[in-house]
Amino acid sequence: MSPNLFLIFLLASAAAAATGFLFRPGDWYVGLRKPGFTPPNWAFPVAWTTIYLLSAIAATRVALLPGAGLALALWSAQIALNTLWTPVFFGARRIALGMVVIAVLTVTVAALTLAVWQLDWRAGLMLLPYLGWLGVASALNWRIWRDNPNA
Amino acid sequence: MSPNLFLIFLLASAAAAATGFLFRPGDWYVGLRKPGFTPPNWAFPVAWTTIYLLSAIAATRVALLPGAGLALALWSAQIALNTLWTPVFFGARRIALGMVVIAVLTVTVAALTLAVWQLDWRAGLMLLPYLGWLGVASALNWRIWRDNPNA
Repeated sequence: MSPNLFLIFLLASAAAAATGFLFRPGDWYVGLRKPGFTPPNWAFPVAWTTIYLLSAIAATRVALLPGAGLALALWSAQIALNTLWTPVFFGARRIALGMVVIAVLTVTVAALTLAVWQLDWRAGLMLLPYLGWLGVASALNWRIWRDNPNA
Repeated sequence: MSPNLFLIFLLASAAAAATGFLFRPGDWYVGLRKPGFTPPNWAFPVAWTTIYLLSAIAATRVALLPGAGLALALWSAQIALNTLWTPVFFGARRIALGMVVIAVLTVTVAALTLAVWQLDWRAGLMLLPYLGWLGVASALNWRIWRDNPNA
């Protein structure tokens, strides 16, 4: 694995992670009706730190393989969509638009996982926590949208 | 050029572009002291549309070439940083932090231009408007930061 490539993918992930420091849940989020499966607040930074590290490692493992173009294009789309979600949901408080963004992000990460798996199955495995967490986050975004019609 | 790859790079660019619709300049920006070289408002969407299209074409041109890993890693970092800047500046109104983001973005795009140029000089040329516009935008962010100590 190239350390330079890893640091560049980590820089991209840091841009996405920075949105979590800038746009915090706060009173607005506390006041929303949330489903019983809502993870506790501490779980979010733990999950995202793990996901950003694993997905940067997965990208670095495949980046220099022949035919990695599709996987890296999908990786760039997921990190841009990931950077967008937090400002949409917690910044602009656009819950329905957040649902659209996270749905497109989940499809992108599913396609990414397939593309990476075909190049290096171990790297593909590293993306499964991301896909799983997006399942939880999408369901949460959807339930918040449905249960808070006036938010 | 692969149309699928182009559409994926365009999706990433659309995520970045969406921030411009969500976080608009508004009264706060109008009220800031701005330097004489500030471009008129209409120039921003024109410049960014051109830049997003050209940089997606540049990425598509190099994505399937051998040794494109570094260029594509840098492309993913620039699109994440690009998506971050507008929420930082216009959403959170963090002018100094916006300066940090745009400085890192400019260095990333400079490195991207070099990496792409070595693979395909025509694709490298397509990134020059991006680099030029970032020069203007960085200078503008810096002057706004310097001239509005209480904003």
